[in-house]
Amino acid sequence: MKIILIQGANMEYLGKREPELYGTITAKELDEILMNAAMVLDQKLEIRYTNIEGEAISWIYEAERNDFKGLIMNPAGFLFAGYALRECLKSVSLPYIEVHMTNIDRRGMHSITACEAKGMITGMGVESYLLALSAMDKYLKKKSS
Amino acid sequence: MKIILIQGANMEYLGKREPELYGTITAKELDEILMNAAMVLDQKLEIRYTNIEGEAISWIYEAERNDFKGLIMNPAGFLFAGYALRECLKSVSLPYIEVHMTNIDRRGMHSITACEAKGMITGMGVESYLLALSAMDKYLKKKSS
Amino acid sequence: MKIILIQGANMEYLGKREPELYGTITAKELDEILMNAAMVLDQKLEIRYTNIEGEAISWIYEAERNDFKGLIMNPAGFLFAGYALRECLKSVSLPYIEVHMTNIDRRGMHSITACEAKGMITGMGVESYLLALSAMDKYLKKKSS
Amino acid sequence: MKIILIQGANMEYLGKREPELYGTITAKELDEILMNAAMVLDQKLEIRYTNIEGEAISWIYEAERNDFKGLIMNPAGFLFAGYALRECLKSVSLPYIEVHMTNIDRRGMHSITACEAKGMITGMGVESYLLALSAMDKYLKKKSS
Amino acid sequence: MKIILIQGANMEYLGKREPELYGTITAKELDEILMNAAMVLDQKLEIRYTNIEGEAISWIYEAERNDFKGLIMNPAGFLFAGYALRECLKSVSLPYIEVHMTNIDRRGMHSITACEAKGMITGMGVESYLLALSAMDKYLKKKSS
Amino acid sequence: MKIILIQGANMEYLGKREPELYGTITAKELDEILMNAAMVLDQKLEIRYTNIEGEAISWIYEAERNDFKGLIMNPAGFLFAGYALRECLKSVSLPYIEVHMTNIDRRGMHSITACEAKGMITGMGVESYLLALSAMDKYLKKKSS
Amino acid sequence: MKIILIQGANMEYLGKREPELYGTITAKELDEILMNAAMVLDQKLEIRYTNIEGEAISWIYEAERNDFKGLIMNPAGFLFAGYALRECLKSVSLPYIEVHMTNIDRRGMHSITACEAKGMITGMGVESYLLALSAMDKYLKKKSS
Amino acid sequence: MKIILIQGANMEYLGKREPELYGTITAKELDEILMNAAMVLDQKLEIRYTNIEGEAISWIYEAERNDFKGLIMNPAGFLFAGYALRECLKSVSLPYIEVHMTNIDRRGMHSITACEAKGMITGMGVESYLLALSAMDKYLKKKSS
Amino acid sequence: MKIILIQGANMEYLGKREPELYGTITAKELDEILMNAAMVLDQKLEIRYTNIEGEAISWIYEAERNDFKGLIMNPAGFLFAGYALRECLKSVSLPYIEVHMTNIDRRGMHSITACEAKGMITGMGVESYLLALSAMDKYLKKKSS
Amino acid sequence: MKIILIQGANMEYLGKREPELYGTITAKELDEILMNAAMVLDQKLEIRYTNIEGEAISWIYEAERNDFKGLIMNPAGFLFAGYALRECLKSVSLPYIEVHMTNIDRRGMHSITACEAKGMITGMGVESYLLALSAMDKYLKKKSS
Amino acid sequence: MKIILIQGANMEYLGKREPELYGTITAKELDEILMNAAMVLDQKLEIRYTNIEGEAISWIYEAERNDFKGLIMNPAGFLFAGYALRECLKSVSLPYIEVHMTNIDRRGMHSITACEAKGMITGMGVESYLLALSAMDKYLKKKSS
Amino acid sequence: MKIILIQGANMEYLGKREPELYGTITAKELDEILMNAAMVLDQKLEIRYTNIEGEAISWIYEAERNDFKGLIMNPAGFLFAGYALRECLKSVSLPYIEVHMTNIDRRGMHSITACEAKGMITGMGVESYLLALSAMDKYLKKKSS
Repeated sequence: MKIILIQGANMEYLGKREPELYGTITAKELDEILMNAAMVLDQKLEIRYTNIEGEAISWIYEAERNDFKGLIMNPAGFLFAGYALRECLKSVSLPYIEVHMTNIDRRGMHSITACEAKGMITGMGVESYLLALSAMDKYLKKKSS
Repeated sequence: MKIILIQGANMEYLGKREPELYGTITAKELDEILMNAAMVLDQKLEIRYTNIEGEAISWIYEAERNDFKGLIMNPAGFLFAGYALRECLKSVSLPYIEVHMTNIDRRGMHSITACEAKGMITGMGVESYLLALSAMDKYLKKKSS
Repeated sequence: MKIILIQGANMEYLGKREPELYGTITAKELDEILMNAAMVLDQKLEIRYTNIEGEAISWIYEAERNDFKGLIMNPAGFLFAGYALRECLKSVSLPYIEVHMTNIDRRGMHSITACEAKGMITGMGVESYLLALSAMDKYLKKKSS
Repeated sequence: MKIILIQGANMEYLGKREPELYGTITAKELDEILMNAAMVLDQKLEIRYTNIEGEAISWIYEAERNDFKGLIMNPAGFLFAGYALRECLKSVSLPYIEVHMTNIDRRGMHSITACEAKGMITGMGVESYLLALSAMDKYLKKKSS
Repeated sequence: MKIILIQGANMEYLGKREPELYGTITAKELDEILMNAAMVLDQKLEIRYTNIEGEAISWIYEAERNDFKGLIMNPAGFLFAGYALRECLKSVSLPYIEVHMTNIDRRGMHSITACEAKGMITGMGVESYLLALSAMDKYLKKKSS
Repeated sequence: MKIILIQGANMEYLGKREPELYGTITAKELDEILMNAAMVLDQKLEIRYTNIEGEAISWIYEAERNDFKGLIMNPAGFLFAGYALRECLKSVSLPYIEVHMTNIDRRGMHSITACEAKGMITGMGVESYLLALSAMDKYLKKKSS
Repeated sequence: MKIILIQGANMEYLGKREPELYGTITAKELDEILMNAAMVLDQKLEIRYTNIEGEAISWIYEAERNDFKGLIMNPAGFLFAGYALRECLKSVSLPYIEVHMTNIDRRGMHSITACEAKGMITGMGVESYLLALSAMDKYLKKKSS
Repeated sequence: MKIILIQGANMEYLGKREPELYGTITAKELDEILMNAAMVLDQKLEIRYTNIEGEAISWIYEAERNDFKGLIMNPAGFLFAGYALRECLKSVSLPYIEVHMTNIDRRGMHSITACEAKGMITGMGVESYLLALSAMDKYLKKKSS
Repeated sequence: MKIILIQGANMEYLGKREPELYGTITAKELDEILMNAAMVLDQKLEIRYTNIEGEAISWIYEAERNDFKGLIMNPAGFLFAGYALRECLKSVSLPYIEVHMTNIDRRGMHSITACEAKGMITGMGVESYLLALSAMDKYLKKKSS
Repeated sequence: MKIILIQGANMEYLGKREPELYGTITAKELDEILMNAAMVLDQKLEIRYTNIEGEAISWIYEAERNDFKGLIMNPAGFLFAGYALRECLKSVSLPYIEVHMTNIDRRGMHSITACEAKGMITGMGVESYLLALSAMDKYLKKKSS
Repeated sequence: MKIILIQGANMEYLGKREPELYGTITAKELDEILMNAAMVLDQKLEIRYTNIEGEAISWIYEAERNDFKGLIMNPAGFLFAGYALRECLKSVSLPYIEVHMTNIDRRGMHSITACEAKGMITGMGVESYLLALSAMDKYLKKKSS
Repeated sequence: MKIILIQGANMEYLGKREPELYGTITAKELDEILMNAAMVLDQKLEIRYTNIEGEAISWIYEAERNDFKGLIMNPAGFLFAGYALRECLKSVSLPYIEVHMTNIDRRGMHSITACEAKGMITGMGVESYLLALSAMDKYLKKKSS
């Protein structure tokens, strides 16, 4: 069960960027936690970071072609104007779960890509990702049964 | 660890109401699933349904006074104009997690109360509630440690 | 053929409230006129008044469960922000006809619940209700034939 | 008691135009039904169709001059931008009842002329017209008494 | 010096239409006053009334082809949505003076065609037309000198 | 001279709710202060709390029927969407003075019910209520003389 | 294969109207070019001009009844407020291609009727019409095969 | 018959300011033309210039107290945000005619004070003022007769 | 205890300006009432009138420098666009109470300066000023204790 | 005559992406059709796909430097927020024709780049591109003659 | 080379007004710094403060008449609604550089006069003025060469 | 003292792109001027161009990691929708000065990234960059002292 996790614009700087919002865990440390959690769920997780919206789009089409079964994404900086990304999500059949570490509603933000998700999890910090992995697991098992 | 779960306007009709959106599980069946899940997590869960916004407000103040440790709520029909409810959430110290069975963004809706939540989980159907119980559990343990 | 008629916020004060708009017939007198008209049409009419939106919602679900065949409602004060009521109307299979004694368009108002009605009748004073009873009668007979 | 009924833009195509919305009764068949109903009520009904807003305006002034007692109109295609028609309605003393076969609120439309009506009836298909004839009858009798 | 005066939608009803706004002088009486005033200024005035925007457009092109020297118009009911008329005015070389009997600003209205006028005169009742004839006279004499 | 004071949504939690805004005086202590002040002014004051908008509406009609002479209200959480409450205030003849403990303008809020008040007093904390009692006293004496 | 081409408000003045935008070819010259091009494609082309929106509507219904196979239209002045025309286009089964000589986007305009077209061609001057004839030809052949 | 003419912000620079819009006649030359025209009409004209909105307000109250009979004003730079000036105009009984040398509609401007005028004359350059003097003359004579 | 009271644009005309709104008490009479009331409270009151926003700003800075203890202001005509005044209020440490004789909410107005006030009193006519003096007295005593 | 055709975000997935909208022809098959059509018109066509807006910008500058004569582009996913692309189009002298396979107006979309095009062709599927090649051919021949 | 520097509404209070934003340097100290800097650049600098928009307008016209060569201005409190000032700036030929001590964008403000500037410098505190003097020096030398 | 200067979308075409706005100096010539000016100030300047927003983001994080001391950027084409870039600027501690060659306010544009700058300099052409280097120099020296 191959899952791709895409980290959008500015996520590479996790741990150093506004730590009062995002905490002090770095991107590298986060990756380790998630790889471990995926292993427990028998998921083959692939994690990628990009600051370029078009690159995220290309990866999603690539994932669809390479038989990935699920997409988890934190659109991060793309949430404001990622319209092309939204159209891409509309085009693929991969189930998509959107993740945010903070409660974006509390910060007065709205995600342009959320309307194409299966569901969304926000505000739980690192836990948001773990819940997403678990939700994806449940969803894929139910679908394949 | 006492947790209160409030089901907002129209949730009483779950299972019969727009089943293509919300599924065919009834309110009663949902309650059973959640009570069981809470037991596993050692949570004392109390579930209440109301169609009246002001009643939800009163229950939240009551919960705060009676030493509840967490609030989970599906504002449902209150998401459109529940401003008084939002002010109430701002007033209490109970951590609040918001839940929606459907992806409200996909349906073009926006929740007026979400900005006062610790976090939000949407779009996973019954699973949304289970993830919320688990997230609340993690959050309260971390806080108390 | 059981029909429920719900009178929304402020209707209890009919006859005393802005009589230059609503006339001097009181709620009690109106009820009598309508009960008589319903009898002629062989309808079992039940009339209820409430100032609380959530109570109206509960009554509508109750009516659906108790085999009522039609719903007539003057949302009155709920027309401005009755979003939860609107969602309720969307959930039930009861045919709904909306009634206003005045022409709300002339007064610059717009009803948030009207979009869920089968049809709407406005501006005819007491006659608006009578036309609604007659329209409901025709509609139910056509449907059942 | 002379009544004029004006059918606005696109009504000439009734029966062929979006039948899933407007049904399959043609303009000609509708006219027959209405003429019969008017006869029963002792009304002298005159029915006119036009796609040109200005022509409708001229007819309304003409009706006022020729002692018509009531105006029923389905503004149809004029509901979007019929501002000149609205000013005309404001100018005459003829009581005006607006009719729509569909529930325009459900379709997200708003009628620019409705604010000048005595009342409005929507969503009942052919029945909408019959209710309007009956409402006009009641109104004129009450006024003349 | 041929001048055309076009009276827009609803002007035919002058004298009977909202007399507290427009006075009791009828269209016919107004025409006489204006024909006399034009004679004094040695203008050949032609006055036309229409409720149909497209007819007004056709007359303006016709006037340009037939060597009229000036256009005075009270767009009346066309002021709200007369976009096609506005484009027509942009196309012709005829100097155009816009006239309103009432102060449309005071009534919260804005004329869509005013931006294509040489100038505008509002609020003076019948006098508005006389000032327009005089302004047109001055303008044409200055231009031809 | 009977006066009714209605405390809107969330006021029951006064003293514990956002004390940096509302101070630490509790609802109970506030009531005592106000009852004393009313006694000095020879007013029979009745104080009620509710989180349900429709309940406030019912109380206002009841007060009108029971010969109360004045209404003071802090709409609190109802200020955002209390349209039905606003219509109710429009219907009764009771003079109404609106009270807010904080300066709602400074907080970027606007009260939907203020337009139906005789006057409004904001930003003075507990003193706001005392000024309202005094203003009501002056107003009623002047009216009855 | 009968095709109707409708030229909207102000097109009759082509060649004289804002020639820096529309060029100096007159309506008559344009008609000749198009009749020749249609002949080459074996189309029976009928060209009509009108300044009256309602007349365009009537022609479209007439064309549908008289077995025309395609509709090409330059709504011209109707693009701003031709809502009734838009509803008409929605009603007929004739395939419709919209044409504009200029790039209306560059001029900050938006066509209200474009949403009902099969497709749109803008900005190519006279060539816009020729491309439309060719596109209609291709479309009708593909459909009938 | 005393008339006051107030020239608003930036009018002092007439002749040098954007001459392609306002012409090359200076403020001084304009004053002379107007004083002569006033003399012919037997008006005692007083002309004042100011860049300060509050000063204009003070002059208008002063004029009312000193028995002036009419007010002509070119609000000029005050047209954008002269709300206090507008309230002042609402307060006095002096008939007010608003003047603009250019057609402000053509320039996409809207005057905030126009709604308080008896009428408005725009777009005629210096002639605008002369028409205003003449209109004021006619109006005052009619009123006093 | 020195207090400054500033009366904004158009207040000089009190008594003559829209008496149905503001009553017939003149500015001079109001001043006397307020001076007496201030004496009773042991306040040294200084009252100033201006139609010029910038003058009000200068007076406020002057008051701050000259050890005034409180500012009461009726911004009157400045309420619409007094942004510079608002910035000034933000700069000074003088406590500010805003006063309006009428209920501005009822008149559909909103004060741009209200957000910088300690509190606001509206709708009580002359009484509004007296309540403000009393509120200022209470506030200053509490602060100094 | 070198022509560049740029396919914007998500076009790489043509044939698999929302086939009910875009058909089942793949990007590769489309390229072949277009290369053949270009050959017939004696155009040297170069086709490029990208999901990255900045890459499209770089290619356009490169094309201008390398003596391309025309630009055809389907901005696709860039149509929503391609402001930088729009500025680029404004900078170059290459004539630009915009292409869309679907009628974007029917789908409620608006292209941010269309205002910089010579013209636009929408809604004809693959035919849209062929018409664009033909239009570009005509345009360049006319320009060079 | 005469330069005028105008300090808009509230600048007189520099040093005491919101020092966390504007620093503690007073207006007088700032003037000294700028006079010295101007001397080094061989500029004859004149510095003026005003809270009255109209006074600033008068000074600008005066400066133009008295052969000043450049205008530097911190519109300060006029930035919100200084429309008349903006029109004034449009009228004069003096090059204008706008200065703000703080980054107004960061504070969510937008200057209404900035569109008439040659350029703008923000956010550098006192340094903003020094950079403006230097930019004006460069600009004037280049222009005169 | 290492400084990075980033040139946003379309800057690579400087000198050829809209030279009436940006002048004829090419990107290469500009670089030389700036390198020389930096040398005089003892700054180690690095200049980079990109059309891709995400690339700019990556460079900024890289600069922060590699101990650059200041960031100067002309966001150019990114100013419209560079939300991700704005979030990046919020994340880093590098002081940022924004530069525009033209007065963007005059062109009706607003920069989405400006709110994260220390300050902004606009409208001075090449001089804008030189002023920014000088301002950065002053700022860094002051900070380190």
